[in-house]
This record gives sequence, C-alpha cells and structure tokens, in this order.
Amino acid sequence: MEGKQRGLLLVLSAPSGGGKGTVMKELLAQEENLRLSVSATTRAPRPGEVHGEQYYFVSREEFEDMIAGGRMLEHAQYVGNYYGTPRAPVEKWLTEGRDVVLEIEVQGGKQIKSLCPDCVSVFILPPSMEVLEKRLRGRGTEEDALVRKRLETARGEIPHAAEYDYIVYNDRLEDAVEDIQAILRAEKRKYSRNRDFTERMNAHA
Amino acid sequence: MEGKQRGLLLVLSAPSGGGKGTVMKELLAQEENLRLSVSATTRAPRPGEVHGEQYYFVSREEFEDMIAGGRMLEHAQYVGNYYGTPRAPVEKWLTEGRDVVLEIEVQGGKQIKSLCPDCVSVFILPPSMEVLEKRLRGRGTEEDALVRKRLETARGEIPHAAEYDYIVYNDRLEDAVEDIQAILRAEKRKYSRNRDFTERMNAHA
Repeated sequence: MEGKQRGLLLVLSAPSGGGKGTVMKELLAQEENLRLSVSATTRAPRPGEVHGEQYYFVSREEFEDMIAGGRMLEHAQYVGNYYGTPRAPVEKWLTEGRDVVLEIEVQGGKQIKSLCPDCVSVFILPPSMEVLEKRLRGRGTEEDALVRKRLETARGEIPHAAEYDYIVYNDRLEDAVEDIQAILRAEKRKYSRNRDFTERMNAHA
Repeated sequence: MEGKQRGLLLVLSAPSGGGKGTVMKELLAQEENLRLSVSATTRAPRPGEVHGEQYYFVSREEFEDMIAGGRMLEHAQYVGNYYGTPRAPVEKWLTEGRDVVLEIEVQGGKQIKSLCPDCVSVFILPPSMEVLEKRLRGRGTEEDALVRKRLETARGEIPHAAEYDYIVYNDRLEDAVEDIQAILRAEKRKYSRNRDFTERMNAHA
C-alpha cells in the first residue's frame, strides 16, 4: 500500500559497548526493505575487512575530493582518520522507497540532523551502567585498564542521547529490534510524511 | 521494563464512515494496557445504550458544572448536545501507567492538542473515496440521499487530518491496528518522554 513513498533514513548511534552492531545485524536480517549504508574511511583495512563490506577504504585525497564535491552526507575525523557517508547510494535507495540505516559515531549525530532534518535518529543505550560494564568485561580478552577506559568513553557519550529523536534500551535484543521496527512503521504514518493524503484518496475516485 | 512511565493519551478521530469504531474495538481487544475513556453527553440514551458504557448520560446542568469546575478535558457541542471527556479517570489511568484512548469528533481534535500537548493524535482515513462510498452504501439500510449526505460530511472532515500527528489508512483492519500499536510503542521511545535516561541507567549502578 505504501507505493512510492520515499524511504526513511535511520541513523543509529550508541555509546561504546552499547551493542549497536548486534542490533543492526538482527534488524537487517528481519527488515527486507532496509539497506545498510557502508561508510567510507581513510583508515587501513584490518585483517579480514573487505572493501565495500565493512567500509569503502579510500585515500585521504579521494576522501577530501568527495567532501569538496558535496558527495559526503556527513563526515567526521576520529583518531586521525576520516569516516563518512557517501551520499549517492543513500539517495538512490531512498528514492526507490527503501529505508536506509546509517551507523554513526556519537559525534556525527548532530551533523546529520542538520544536513537531513527528515531522518529518524535512534540512540541505543544499555539498560544500566552495571550491564554495560559486564558486557565490556564479558568480551574476556580485554584488560582491566582497557575496560575502564571504554567505560569512561561511554560515560562521556551517553549524554549525547539528548540529540536523538528516540532512545532504545538494548536489554533484550528482540525488544530493541522490535522497538526500532515500531519506530520505522510509526514514522511512516506521521502526518508530515503524508501531506498528499487527499490526492491519494482521490486517486481511485 | 517500562516501570512507572506515565501512560500515553491516544486521541482517535475519523471522518464519517472511516471505521473508527471497528479499529477501536480491535485495538482494545489486543492491547491489555489500554483503557477506553467513556465520554459524557447530554443527549438522551438510545435503546440499548447503557450509562457508563457508550456514554455517561448527564443533564445539561451537570455537564455545565463539570465544564465550570475544570472537570472536562475537552468538550464540544454537536447537533445541540454537549459531548465531552471527564478528566478524572483519564488522569488516574495515565498516572498508573495505563494508556488511554479517546474517541473524539473531528471538531474536538484541535482543542485537545492545546489542552494536552503531550497526547498522541491519530486520524483514521479510508483508503480512498471509492471505498468510503462503498462502506457507507454497504450498511444496506441507508437511503441514497442519506449516503450522499454522509459522504459530503466526510469530505468536509477529511482535511482536518492535517491537525493530527499521524494518519492511518483503514484498508485492512489488522494493518490499521498494527499501525496504531507501532505508534504507541514508538512514542514511548521518544527522547522527549525519556529525559530521565541517565538517572535510570544509574539506578542499578
């Protein structure tokens, strides 16, 4: 029934250890109409990473050309490297009526909302600081100092939740995924996305 | 997991023949946490109508006392009679964390949004004017002139959709009900309803 309604751009962020990756994976597995935007980066690929899967690996020069040409939807620098969202595939999918999901560093969330006021932004939070710490330790291999450092990072990132439209607690994975599915469904029913309702109703009259 | 989060006030309206009644009934059957606000009216009960079920039937004097005392959340006059929403039960349920649904005449929708900016308003539309006409005729007993009159009324009411937060097309009943369920779920995840997120996360720390 949706016909050619433009797709939704969903922006997901989470503090360090928030479990964004797991939620994304499950969401993409369940939502046929959802496409993952692959970011571009200037950092070197890690063992096992494939160009076009985890990232598009590009040179600093190429990246800066894309920024200059307006071909990046958003970008940020992080530990000396560029990370960004190429605009073209996102635009193509949205026009086709596909929803597109974008994983974004907490720092990038503010920028994308001003570039794309239409997007729907979701901040994923662990249910409590206790659980967050357990999850960070649970990875097993991490040293104590590293866990403490990541906890500190998370503490600094959590207040950024206030810059997002929705907050989803990642307590049980299924609930978090269903929350995001409900958000997508509800957003499509917003009056602001259905201003053509009278035309539509008269189309078959 | 919601704990004591305040319930949502859901306002439903539809043009004449929009099928609001059917959607409401199914929604209430499926949503355990949802309560129906029963309106008060000064019109006489019709055969079979029970005080406290379809309406609270009150005198004109009682109704005006309730308005004067601030005990009506909203009210409107319609064909010479008062219709309104008693405030007390709605407030009680919301405080307990129940969601409350209010059926409201199209004319009342604007008023309730200014009285209760926090509420979630949904306008139910038939999928097309063609379907609307079929549904109005489908009742069988209606004369042609009456059907045409109700169609005209609906045509005048449909543009009021612009005053609501969400538009739900009542094509397949299940889809309309699921849309509203998604809206309720998504609204509870809005940042504006979760400003206490840091307290909550630290509660178990």
